[in-house]
Amino acid sequence: MAECPLPDDGADTVLLGHGSGGRMSARLIGEVFLPALGNPILDRLGDSAVFDAGGLRLAFTTDAFVVHPLRFPGGDLGSLAVHGTINDLAVAGARPLVLSAAFILEEGYPLAELRGLVASMRAAARDAEVHVVAADTKVVERGKGDGVYVTTSGIGIVPRGVELGPECIRPGDAVLVSGPLGDHGIAVLSAREGIAFDTDVVSDSAALHHLVGALLTSGAAVRCLRDPTRGGVATVANELARAAGVAMRLDETAVPVRPGVRAACEMLGLDPLYVACEGRLLAVVAGADAERALAALRAHPLGAGAARIGDVDAADDGPPVRLRTPFGSLRALDVLPGAQLPRIC
Amino acid sequence: MAECPLPDDGADTVLLGHGSGGRMSARLIGEVFLPALGNPILDRLGDSAVFDAGGLRLAFTTDAFVVHPLRFPGGDLGSLAVHGTINDLAVAGARPLVLSAAFILEEGYPLAELRGLVASMRAAARDAEVHVVAADTKVVERGKGDGVYVTTSGIGIVPRGVELGPECIRPGDAVLVSGPLGDHGIAVLSAREGIAFDTDVVSDSAALHHLVGALLTSGAAVRCLRDPTRGGVATVANELARAAGVAMRLDETAVPVRPGVRAACEMLGLDPLYVACEGRLLAVVAGADAERALAALRAHPLGAGAARIGDVDAADDGPPVRLRTPFGSLRALDVLPGAQLPRIC
Repeated sequence: MAECPLPDDGADTVLLGHGSGGRMSARLIGEVFLPALGNPILDRLGDSAVFDAGGLRLAFTTDAFVVHPLRFPGGDLGSLAVHGTINDLAVAGARPLVLSAAFILEEGYPLAELRGLVASMRAAARDAEVHVVAADTKVVERGKGDGVYVTTSGIGIVPRGVELGPECIRPGDAVLVSGPLGDHGIAVLSAREGIAFDTDVVSDSAALHHLVGALLTSGAAVRCLRDPTRGGVATVANELARAAGVAMRLDETAVPVRPGVRAACEMLGLDPLYVACEGRLLAVVAGADAERALAALRAHPLGAGAARIGDVDAADDGPPVRLRTPFGSLRALDVLPGAQLPRIC
Repeated sequence: MAECPLPDDGADTVLLGHGSGGRMSARLIGEVFLPALGNPILDRLGDSAVFDAGGLRLAFTTDAFVVHPLRFPGGDLGSLAVHGTINDLAVAGARPLVLSAAFILEEGYPLAELRGLVASMRAAARDAEVHVVAADTKVVERGKGDGVYVTTSGIGIVPRGVELGPECIRPGDAVLVSGPLGDHGIAVLSAREGIAFDTDVVSDSAALHHLVGALLTSGAAVRCLRDPTRGGVATVANELARAAGVAMRLDETAVPVRPGVRAACEMLGLDPLYVACEGRLLAVVAGADAERALAALRAHPLGAGAARIGDVDAADDGPPVRLRTPFGSLRALDVLPGAQLPRIC
């Protein structure tokens, strides 16, 4: 197992595309990490690991945050690191319990800036009613980091009776999103490149555990939840369809996208279906319960823009995810090979 | 709480000394992180956070590993990241349950090297019988990292009846270490600087949970455990003595140090009491049980060089930790202000 072939994208070094969340990321994980570290829990590649411990069902997740720039409209590294990890727990159906934070600081980074990021982290954690109970700080030389990187990990408890995962997805299910797509990615890009779009775009970064709680208690049969971060909804839909052994049909005209995000994407040649969100939920629910689930989402401030964007079909010989275009034709919606937007989270 | 004074070492930016584990690290934590993020669990500043969850006592810890170079005699980043987090759980008295790993990869880092580090991580985890169940990978541009940084977090379960912590330390207790000090720091330094010492020094990096298990089941009254990493035994002794409100007296002639480490320290002007270990235990036990505890440690391969290095006294007006020199005099053993050896873990 120690020897396995190099990723067939031909790379023999790490490339930016390996961090994209797309096909190169999947190859790196599948060909370097899983052959060495794989086990039945890790192999599921869920947003959280879920396992039994002394009679509890625990969810456990970790994420490194390397967003650049550190501040962007609607958030910063601190709030993003809290929201991102809470959301990975939430989409596993878990009630977030505690967080940890490990900081890698670059020599020369202003302490006043650090103080601001930590204050933002505190505010996000306080609003989410979750404590950071463990932390670590390391310092690297100037030129070996980029101000600050932070890795947050989180533990949650999955209530009895909550069973979520791609294996629960069935033909006939409906695919929902909790609001407009792509706000986070475009907000970071605008801050990074100094682009002023016609309409100011603000990151959707938010903690989703209360929205998830509202959905799970709505009575709708919820099959699977994900937060479409790196790679966006298109990538998540592909992962779920492949893991579930089904086909998904998304309807482009039903996908909610803010005008400012749409304009920015058109200017930059991006497809909002691949742009990262940090406060949106993708939910697969039983088709018959779609309206009930949408009503539950829309009753929560973070789900006001919820929409049904597609349906689950039985797998066939075609691509696992297809998009119905505004012209009524169907086209394959594939995973991107490499980087669309690096360092977005 | 958002406003608090800058650290009184006068720095207004991050300095390498802030990562040393010494006084500058403590100030950064005390003046930037705790005022914002503090809560009763984090404020304890233990190697792990310990808290109740649904009837279990969980231990939770996180550590970023930025060791340079990535490989050193006796280990590498991969094995170190596994051992370090297992040890933070072990010294909380916890049985390690699962680990997570978050990788920050620098563009251009050779995949063959990464594969080697991940294989080393796997071997360390397998030997320790602990699985990595959650992982994440991010990529940063060339010149914004240093090959690879990895943050491991871990969850453990603290058995009922195990109560460890500085608040358990009493005058009359004995201070033990499980083996020779400073091997890890000197091994990394020799690899970094290309120094060939007379005797080859190999890192002590190892997972200590079985050694801790042997000690806890020996019948000795164990008060508190720590692994003396950054800042070494001197720093840990100061932290414990201050937290416990006691004085500690260490005996320099009783401190086990390998000849090669001693020679290297003399050459470099270092004191082995401040040099990091990554597979040594500092244990405070009831004085009457010191021999029983030493016997339990010595019966385990990782504790063969265990020694009693000091005693706990009631606090007085003097410094919290004093060292009896080979000449019989007592001198204050303080915490180092800044960096002795940066990026040692």
